[in-house]
Amino acid sequence: MYKNSFLLLCFLFVVSTIYAQNIESPNRQLSLTFDIDQGVPYYTLSYKGKKVIEKSRLGFEMINIPSMKNDFNLLKSSTSAFDETWKPVWGEVKEIRNQYNELEIVLEQGNPIRTVIIRFRLYNDGLGFRYEFPNQKHLSYFTIADELTQFNLGKDYTAFWIRGDYDTNEYNYTTSLLSDVVKKIDIATEEISAQTPTQEITVQTPLMLKGNGIYINIHEASLKDYPAMLLELDSTGVVLSTHLTPDPLGGKGRMQTATQTPWRTLLISDNAADILASKMILNLNEPNKIEDTSWIKPMKYIGVWWEMFIPKGGSWAYADTANIKLDEIDYSQIKPNGRHAANTKNVKRYIDFAAKHGFDGVLVEGWNIGWEDWFGTMKENVFDFVTPYPDFDVKELQQYASQQGVKLIMHHETSASVPNYERRMDEAYRFMKENGYNAVKSGYVGSIIPLGEHHYGQTMVNHYLRAIEKGADYKVMINAHEPVRPTGMHRTYPNYLAAESARGTEYEALGNVKPDHQTILPFTRLIGGPMDYTPGIFQTDLSYYDPSTKNRINTTLAKQLALYVTMYSPLQMAADLPENYERFADAFQFIKDVPVDWDDTRILEAEPGDYITITRKEKNGDDWFIGSITDENKRVSSISLDFLDPDKSYIATIYADGTDADYETKPQSYSIKNYRVNYKSKLSIPVARSGGYAIHIKNATSQQIKELKEQ
Amino acid sequence: MYKNSFLLLCFLFVVSTIYAQNIESPNRQLSLTFDIDQGVPYYTLSYKGKKVIEKSRLGFEMINIPSMKNDFNLLKSSTSAFDETWKPVWGEVKEIRNQYNELEIVLEQGNPIRTVIIRFRLYNDGLGFRYEFPNQKHLSYFTIADELTQFNLGKDYTAFWIRGDYDTNEYNYTTSLLSDVVKKIDIATEEISAQTPTQEITVQTPLMLKGNGIYINIHEASLKDYPAMLLELDSTGVVLSTHLTPDPLGGKGRMQTATQTPWRTLLISDNAADILASKMILNLNEPNKIEDTSWIKPMKYIGVWWEMFIPKGGSWAYADTANIKLDEIDYSQIKPNGRHAANTKNVKRYIDFAAKHGFDGVLVEGWNIGWEDWFGTMKENVFDFVTPYPDFDVKELQQYASQQGVKLIMHHETSASVPNYERRMDEAYRFMKENGYNAVKSGYVGSIIPLGEHHYGQTMVNHYLRAIEKGADYKVMINAHEPVRPTGMHRTYPNYLAAESARGTEYEALGNVKPDHQTILPFTRLIGGPMDYTPGIFQTDLSYYDPSTKNRINTTLAKQLALYVTMYSPLQMAADLPENYERFADAFQFIKDVPVDWDDTRILEAEPGDYITITRKEKNGDDWFIGSITDENKRVSSISLDFLDPDKSYIATIYADGTDADYETKPQSYSIKNYRVNYKSKLSIPVARSGGYAIHIKNATSQQIKELKEQ
Repeated sequence: MYKNSFLLLCFLFVVSTIYAQNIESPNRQLSLTFDIDQGVPYYTLSYKGKKVIEKSRLGFEMINIPSMKNDFNLLKSSTSAFDETWKPVWGEVKEIRNQYNELEIVLEQGNPIRTVIIRFRLYNDGLGFRYEFPNQKHLSYFTIADELTQFNLGKDYTAFWIRGDYDTNEYNYTTSLLSDVVKKIDIATEEISAQTPTQEITVQTPLMLKGNGIYINIHEASLKDYPAMLLELDSTGVVLSTHLTPDPLGGKGRMQTATQTPWRTLLISDNAADILASKMILNLNEPNKIEDTSWIKPMKYIGVWWEMFIPKGGSWAYADTANIKLDEIDYSQIKPNGRHAANTKNVKRYIDFAAKHGFDGVLVEGWNIGWEDWFGTMKENVFDFVTPYPDFDVKELQQYASQQGVKLIMHHETSASVPNYERRMDEAYRFMKENGYNAVKSGYVGSIIPLGEHHYGQTMVNHYLRAIEKGADYKVMINAHEPVRPTGMHRTYPNYLAAESARGTEYEALGNVKPDHQTILPFTRLIGGPMDYTPGIFQTDLSYYDPSTKNRINTTLAKQLALYVTMYSPLQMAADLPENYERFADAFQFIKDVPVDWDDTRILEAEPGDYITITRKEKNGDDWFIGSITDENKRVSSISLDFLDPDKSYIATIYADGTDADYETKPQSYSIKNYRVNYKSKLSIPVARSGGYAIHIKNATSQQIKELKEQ
Repeated sequence: MYKNSFLLLCFLFVVSTIYAQNIESPNRQLSLTFDIDQGVPYYTLSYKGKKVIEKSRLGFEMINIPSMKNDFNLLKSSTSAFDETWKPVWGEVKEIRNQYNELEIVLEQGNPIRTVIIRFRLYNDGLGFRYEFPNQKHLSYFTIADELTQFNLGKDYTAFWIRGDYDTNEYNYTTSLLSDVVKKIDIATEEISAQTPTQEITVQTPLMLKGNGIYINIHEASLKDYPAMLLELDSTGVVLSTHLTPDPLGGKGRMQTATQTPWRTLLISDNAADILASKMILNLNEPNKIEDTSWIKPMKYIGVWWEMFIPKGGSWAYADTANIKLDEIDYSQIKPNGRHAANTKNVKRYIDFAAKHGFDGVLVEGWNIGWEDWFGTMKENVFDFVTPYPDFDVKELQQYASQQGVKLIMHHETSASVPNYERRMDEAYRFMKENGYNAVKSGYVGSIIPLGEHHYGQTMVNHYLRAIEKGADYKVMINAHEPVRPTGMHRTYPNYLAAESARGTEYEALGNVKPDHQTILPFTRLIGGPMDYTPGIFQTDLSYYDPSTKNRINTTLAKQLALYVTMYSPLQMAADLPENYERFADAFQFIKDVPVDWDDTRILEAEPGDYITITRKEKNGDDWFIGSITDENKRVSSISLDFLDPDKSYIATIYADGTDADYETKPQSYSIKNYRVNYKSKLSIPVARSGGYAIHIKNATSQQIKELKEQ
């Protein structure tokens, strides 16, 4: 009798979940289940015993071939474990542990039979999975109509989101329940040049979610030869689906086997700090492909840049002539406008300043011809990337910078005319090498040419990577502005130092960045990779330049210092004018001292949209640096210095908001004080509205130990 | 009293035609009238006193700016005359007279006011006119929605037409009344790879018309930075309108002032021969832009080509492997298919043959990696243009060809992946120069990348010209296959030797070319420029290679010889296999003898779709060559040799159809005979069905004068 009931139970089990496969994370806190139900593949994810991703569909609609969304059979499955530690060329930490349990699901489907592999990697801090299309007889070339991957949250969450768009991610963040996105999306769709908001209700990734006792971050890793993913909300707002950027013919991924999608990633924790500390996205990318990395060097730079954003500032263009043709214009016949910033004399001033204060590089924008008429006309030949304006002496400046030990940083604004850039790229890179440039800031402002393509489509994803690979060929470091948001590819190509791909400091010149912006970015945009945020604006009130403007940078000066620690990047700009740094030389000292490469990083406090406090230890040194920022609310930041070496005494130089500091009324109020500290020290530091503090902790000299009381 | 009636008459005149402007052709046979009626600009054209173009509208619909189709005022008009004679770098004649009367109409329109110039040039053989948009305050960048230019024929004509398509012009011609096009267009839309027939009823240009006692040819000249023009038929079929090739966003010309459209051209005569003799299209193009033309040399060539088209023939690909990735494939690991034609040994055989018979060049297709999987998948990276197959030794062949005084001709099949080609173009051209190639046959087979672009759109028009200009930089001659059909740009860029852009001999391998095809092409495709038709197929019955095939070249052997004269090109291939030429060595002698550059050309007989007889005088020599072809009907060609020097005696070697020759039953029946001729000789030569004859006339030796009787 018991034999029979056992058989019956087995039978029921077989019918309902014969295909269910399961793995746990190495720490056993995350648990993934893969399942085929009525031929449709699904996955679910649990964290500490509770479902965080409910049963979520997997699969594809296809163009011109049968779909791959149902009728699946499990051909085989296997599990494996992986654990290795690797050293990044540069980064937040010296070593990164890559530890996961893997579940490989091999599915077959259709007649004739086609095979797809779904590979799940479960880390202690999250899940990565992707689709792989191996070499096979009946599937070689195909075009995806829709990737059907779902993220079924099951519950409502507070989301930190920007609206879905195929061409820009430079929106302000909105904080709202997912279920409220539909109500708020119109307001969130600020006007931005060359934008293409989706018709559907979509948000961009990395998407940060908070609620129900946990934090979830959804993004992708290793995006290459595939369109970027947005997330489309269903009517409840809690079931998110992959929404890929289409090409001009409506395809969403033109594939050739053997190939694979990017990794779809979910970071999960009940502690927001774990999200910031996660290295899962990097781990899901391929190892470094560049053999000789000796030429790749994190750098701190200044530039001829902010002076073009401030009221009554300089101009990129040499003249005010409209309607320019690059191959016809003769600048010797044109009247200069007198406001051209990238002139030899001015650039020398920046070089002098960089040399005096120890900056590695000087970026110069507007050095090359074409800026008179560069935007908004869908013109193909806007820039040639090699011809300087008549008042910019390439050779003289190369020599001048070289003598002072400073590198000039190249600027390639492509005006989003990619065919023109690609045709001229080799010549442009050769020009750089001949003239001593080893880094380039590229830009993609405007509607994309080829016509009908988008910034985040497969064609452009391939272009950005091609530019990085060519950079590697020429030993050039890349800082791309307006590309697709990063997905950890800097592990594979460490010459890809930084990107913009979000609302950066330039929008502050319009007074149009919210005070909580920098407390959200590390949870969203920076999850994929470093951002060239260009912090360090000391003169935050722009009426200083023109009393008629009401625009201001919505932070205190001290918060601007803290950003050098909270906004991780191996490429950091000190964006303000040299004369402003000279006016606040004591505060400027922190920018001079803060490194751009680190041996260790600890997230001391973190709450998306509210505050972030991070400490980092300099590369190959003993100094620690702390940055702390808050949103529009003032607070007291309480931290322990227990990360310090117990055997050492330290001096902490604290750059804090002044007692009367306030981002609107008194942004330039700050204090700088030295304290003796050790690993037992606990600090409680008041932070102003949209304020912050920065701390430089170094080994104390015996003299200092005598002079300073312990904190 | 009479004063008053005079005033009244004046008044009526003012109201009805105040704006009418008029010019005549230098020989006064053509008369053009420009008129503004209710603010709309029109033109009409008369020939020998009769209207050939009725009142036809001019103007534009625009995207995003107000239209420029009505509300026009005449700002000013002026007339001028021009007459100069220029020498082409190569051509059908030694000197070309460029004589026309010009009417410049300056129109203004709209608020704020915008200016457009319409420039008419009236030649003895036709009309050219274009729109010019000068530099102006209120018009700089704009996108054309539709060019409204009409060609209102007023009457029905017999048309020699192929259907309108944005991506191919390789259709067979249909001969029908214009009013019957609508009925016949579906049948005329043969299946061709990568075709995009228009939704509307359109035909392609050059469009040849015959009827009402005259011949009309409609085309365009100097097409650059503008989409190619099709002709859209109204419901009657007799009013044709410009139909431009759209870009992926629906634009039909993205313009920046100062700019202009191509010339819209009408060739008019009551003698079909005048259409063939016209140089108006060339005259409407800009003069040669290449300073040093010493490297530009018309050439006759053979090639590893036809053997890939015949049944059981060779292959472009080295292996039969499917699904290749260019950056991953390792040919040393792949099994060759044993049919790869472009191997070192075979190419040497061609080089030997070329050297023995005095050919300038040897084209080799299939020399470079990627052919295993090159077509129909919209793959971007198909070819790299620099990596040979393992059995093709570039250096050895360079040396071998050079020793024999033969040039190898490069082949760049782009698979229509233009971004890939443009990225690699410099490297590809450098590779050519390093390896002794001075000419390239390029190909654009397939759907265009960038996605949504078309072969005949503005983006591609610009690409073809860019390739030609880069060719000039590298001193490389261009023979483009599948580009937009030529519009006389070889005057400006004489390194643009020839193009395909029509149904060429390759289709004969499918038995799919009509017998009248070659009697139409000179009136259509060749009006714009030379065609690489690749004639010279002696083994016309393809069952010779494989008894199971019914495919045949639909001409006699003698007609194939005649094509070297009737199908003008400075680049002529002898397309058949060397072994076939060796089998018919006596007939082959004509191909060996016929030049590819000429001092003079006379059209002796011509009727589109029926027959063509042309004589040409060799460059810098005394020899004359005659080619005569007919359609599916046999005929007797009667010509006078009155073009010969009256002071000289000549020997004519006549390669004629045999008495029993017939393209279907006896294509290889021919006779070769020598005759004494002089300027008073008249020849009557029977021509077989789809037959022809070729004649080589040279100065007679005294021995020959004795031996041969006079014809």
